[in-house]
Amino acid sequence: MARPSLREKIIESGVQTIHERGFAGAGVREITADAGVPQGCFTNHFRSKEAFGAVVLERYHERTQAIMDETLRNQTLPPVERLRAYFAAITQWLEAASWRYGCMVGNMSLEVVEQSDLLRAHLVEICASLTQSFAEAVRSGQAADQIRDDLDAEDVAAFLLSSWQGAMMRMKVERSGKPIEQFNRVLFSTVLAAPKGA
Amino acid sequence: MARPSLREKIIESGVQTIHERGFAGAGVREITADAGVPQGCFTNHFRSKEAFGAVVLERYHERTQAIMDETLRNQTLPPVERLRAYFAAITQWLEAASWRYGCMVGNMSLEVVEQSDLLRAHLVEICASLTQSFAEAVRSGQAADQIRDDLDAEDVAAFLLSSWQGAMMRMKVERSGKPIEQFNRVLFSTVLAAPKGA
Repeated sequence: MARPSLREKIIESGVQTIHERGFAGAGVREITADAGVPQGCFTNHFRSKEAFGAVVLERYHERTQAIMDETLRNQTLPPVERLRAYFAAITQWLEAASWRYGCMVGNMSLEVVEQSDLLRAHLVEICASLTQSFAEAVRSGQAADQIRDDLDAEDVAAFLLSSWQGAMMRMKVERSGKPIEQFNRVLFSTVLAAPKGA
Repeated sequence: MARPSLREKIIESGVQTIHERGFAGAGVREITADAGVPQGCFTNHFRSKEAFGAVVLERYHERTQAIMDETLRNQTLPPVERLRAYFAAITQWLEAASWRYGCMVGNMSLEVVEQSDLLRAHLVEICASLTQSFAEAVRSGQAADQIRDDLDAEDVAAFLLSSWQGAMMRMKVERSGKPIEQFNRVLFSTVLAAPKGA
């Protein structure tokens, strides 16, 4: 097997460095040191740290996409279970990577949107794709009489995304999985509850 | 009236500078320039930028405390209206300051907790106080048969805080008030709905 290119090495390592240190806290020096490559390499492969940030964000999103395919878009699961499986899988994934670093999409959302139109555009796109997948699961659940249908599926999807990002933020600050447990307990018995009489 | 002290001038101006630029993005140079004081002044009044961050966070929290007294802790309002008034007042306040900067507590939560134990401790304390006030309003609403009582008030309060912070995060990224409107629509008809049969 061919060795990974230097570019690939910097990206792979950079996802972790930016996740752990934050975008502002991860300088080119830290990024290249963690990747084990000379600092001068960086500019051979990336136009700027901002351009690198966009690549890292996409790489992070690809991983969540894989989780989404197995859970949120898994047509063999009942719709409400797709949502439950998605939140559980992301939680498990973040725990494995050390949940104290939280979700990179959320972290970057609050760190970079005022500084970078490029990164903000990527974040908006990633969240729109996630919201759309949530909305599809909610609509399927409503059609199958498994999720209450007195709410607009788009509203519910947007609410799911923001509440979930908020729960991951609290997890990061509290350094505890409790906010995620509370999110699950409240969400599934209210917003994602079965219709009355079902 | 006495002129505000230099220290006070730096704090007042610093709340805005840090809100707009983020904690990492606001250097001592920007903080003192915005305050219109010589850069050298800063260290006469603050041990470090971290110590200054804690003071700024407390000042910001004092302002939200004043809003909480008028809304969330206002015993003359029905409990569910206290919550509604709180979210509306914070939204209005952030809009006036330019909602695109989001909530400073949330912004700092995702920016500084890995870098500063001092600031993390302040953020945990501020959020605990907010959660407690949410829980009191929820308990009052449950006792008054105005809010469904099949959920634990502490769970609901924690869910409110994280979902609300998430909605403000989305508002900041989307540069739109829509995530807040969706938060209100979904929340009050589900988690904060009246008990069945009420």
